[in-house]
Amino acid sequence: MLAYGELLAFDRMAADARLAPDLHRRAALSSMAGVEIANYNRLAARLAALGADPEQAMVPFVEPLREYHDQTEPKDWLEALAKAYVGDGVADDFFREVAGFLGSPDRELVLDVLHDTRYDEFACAEIRQAIAEDPTVANRLSMWSRRLVGEGLSQAQRVAAERPALAMLIIEGTGDQAGVMALLKRLTTAHTTRMAELGLNN
Amino acid sequence: MLAYGELLAFDRMAADARLAPDLHRRAALSSMAGVEIANYNRLAARLAALGADPEQAMVPFVEPLREYHDQTEPKDWLEALAKAYVGDGVADDFFREVAGFLGSPDRELVLDVLHDTRYDEFACAEIRQAIAEDPTVANRLSMWSRRLVGEGLSQAQRVAAERPALAMLIIEGTGDQAGVMALLKRLTTAHTTRMAELGLNN
Repeated sequence: MLAYGELLAFDRMAADARLAPDLHRRAALSSMAGVEIANYNRLAARLAALGADPEQAMVPFVEPLREYHDQTEPKDWLEALAKAYVGDGVADDFFREVAGFLGSPDRELVLDVLHDTRYDEFACAEIRQAIAEDPTVANRLSMWSRRLVGEGLSQAQRVAAERPALAMLIIEGTGDQAGVMALLKRLTTAHTTRMAELGLNN
Repeated sequence: MLAYGELLAFDRMAADARLAPDLHRRAALSSMAGVEIANYNRLAARLAALGADPEQAMVPFVEPLREYHDQTEPKDWLEALAKAYVGDGVADDFFREVAGFLGSPDRELVLDVLHDTRYDEFACAEIRQAIAEDPTVANRLSMWSRRLVGEGLSQAQRVAAERPALAMLIIEGTGDQAGVMALLKRLTTAHTTRMAELGLNN
């Protein structure tokens, strides 16, 4: 799931780079896309080392992730940045939690490929500056972010329903249903903090 | 020019990866795009070290290269591969010739960032296999390649006319007009050889 997520992140950042208002920002986002594809290659190599065919392993996640992205196509540069920061932020927090249930070397690999903070700093700075220049942007991006989280949750429920092994990993990792609820609470709190940092309303 | 070419090559390969018939090929082309953006970063760093603003240095080449790509938008996976192999093949040969006129470390840097052979082998194998499966593909891709070279030459003449310093570098590097003609002859011969290797008619 993470491997396919990286392949998609590459694809999306490369496409979003075209929305960049100048060559400098375009090169910056393109370079970040380059990091995603390098991460993909590390995960694919690990899947192959475990005896799995990376392509086969990724197939179940193609459809839910496509749905998510089809439903949340950014229509400008700021929406693209907010999607990468807010949407990927929730996803990364989730993967970090799951990494804690894995043994070495998978735990370290997952933590290592999660988005580096360079991108977050870049996206945050761009969004804050846009809000400073035009405060109405905050309202538009707040609504956009709520839509991102709603679509994300909807696809996550679908994946959990179709992949009982993944759902079990999380239930066993957290201990019980109360553990799952605590995990969801941590994800929600982190998301609210990220939104507040951007000057957006949850 | 080469820096902007790398940024565009990244952009194009990333977009073409979406045309890939399966996840394996998509990941392969995406990874090659990752190499292009790493090359871009090396060239931009060198421009900055020379005291130039990379963005300003690239601006004159944005329009001619955009025109070339707008006029040669691949409509399927094979056209995308042929464009990268045939079109970039001519461009790479040209940059290799120009590299010979430069001193260190620019000569080595340019030679180093030119397309690695991994991509050529990949594109060649895909095109040859497609022709083996359907011989009519050869005719279609031959016509496509002639169009690529025609559009490329047209934009190259435009750049040469607008950038006398670049034209002078080539004339001084080759020695005289006869030297320029000999350079063009080498580019043409190499292009004909590449076409023949693919099973295409020049």
